[in-house]
This record gives sequence, C-alpha cells and structure tokens, in this order.
Amino acid sequence: MNITGFEKPYYAVIFSSVRNNTDHDGYEKMAERMVELAQLQAGFLGMESVRGSDGFGITISYWNSPESIKAWKANSEHQIAQEFGRTQWYERFSTRICKVERDYDFSVDSIHRAGR
Amino acid sequence: MNITGFEKPYYAVIFSSVRNNTDHDGYEKMAERMVELAQLQAGFLGMESVRGSDGFGITISYWNSPESIKAWKANSEHQIAQEFGRTQWYERFSTRICKVERDYDFSVDSIHRAGR
Repeated sequence: MNITGFEKPYYAVIFSSVRNNTDHDGYEKMAERMVELAQLQAGFLGMESVRGSDGFGITISYWNSPESIKAWKANSEHQIAQEFGRTQWYERFSTRICKVERDYDFSVDSIHRAGR
Repeated sequence: MNITGFEKPYYAVIFSSVRNNTDHDGYEKMAERMVELAQLQAGFLGMESVRGSDGFGITISYWNSPESIKAWKANSEHQIAQEFGRTQWYERFSTRICKVERDYDFSVDSIHRAGR
C-alpha cells in the first residue's frame, strides 16, 4: 500500500526489525491484531509494512502528534506485544520517531507529481 | 540490515514504492548503482531497504542534514534514475523527508535496550 495526503504536521514511527525463525503463526496473529488495534487509536493516520524473505522488515505507522505515539506505545495490549517481540520474535530492531517535514507522491494512474 | 547510533540531529528519506512488472534486470542494476552512489555523497549515514513479493517496497536513507538530502536529490546520475523510475519502473511512490526526533534499539546479542 501507499498512503499519502496526510495533513501536516504529522509523525512517522519507523520500526525496522529482523525476525528470528520461531513461532511464525503466533507472530502473524499478533501482528494482525496490532494493525487492527493501532487503527482504533486516536491520532492514527495509516501504516505501511513489508518484510523480505531474509527476515528483515520495515513497518511505518503515521500519527497526528507525538502524544498519540506515546499513547500507542503505552497501550496495555501493545505493551504485551512489545514484550513478546523482545523475548520471542526479534533478533533485533530499531524504532525511530520522526517528524515528517515534506512529502510528495507519484502515480501512473493520475500522471501527476505534486509537491506539497 | 539494521543501522543505528547516528548522531542527532539526523534525517530520514522514506521512499515507499510499488514496482510494475517490467525490466527487472535494468531496475536491479540501477538500484545497486544508486546504493553505491548514495554512499559516496557527503552527509550520507546509511540505508535500509526491503521489497515484498507483491511489489511493494520501502527504502529509507539516513542523512546528516536537509542540505545533504537536497544535494542527493539533485545529483545528475540520480536525476536520471528518478526519471526512469517515473517513466519505466514504478506504479506509484511516495517520498517523505523526516527529522528523526528519538530512536532506540534492541538486540538479542547484547540484551540491552538503550533509549537515547
């Protein structure tokens, strides 16, 4: 998916991770639940996610404020998922909280390129 | 790859894209060349990239300043690649220029989690 057009200012959480080879089903189930749950949070704008066959993946969630990111991090069900991540599923990960300063899109469908 | 420990402030360029199904070899060759070329630019810190089997991918490059990002965008060989991207290789893409405000890492190897 490509998701654009969010009103500025907005924020991105870049989560880069390397999965270990364990508990594929448990991980997938939790990952799906976290997507559902994130979408219910105040300030959630959208999400992009991809994982390669080598186990490396990037998930980016977009939010309307630093406060909404903090609230999501502190969500109790999300806290449980984070603990499973550290103890069961990830070799390593990095989390980066970013402010989006500029964005622009391209699509073959519309043949436009709009700097915003 | 996971790449961390960059001195702040630093900046991220999030490039989310959907490939079409054409010119796999030409695209791969140019993509490899762009990684080589980016690494030679002043202010380049690192890069993470992953593409899924469905054609959706995310590449994030990290830079030490907005100026180094502008210089990379204007690089003449990179400009040619960008034009091929729009006319040949991508269904759509989004580019976001971001300032990284916080980051933290986790690794099973070191069993540490350092907020920075």
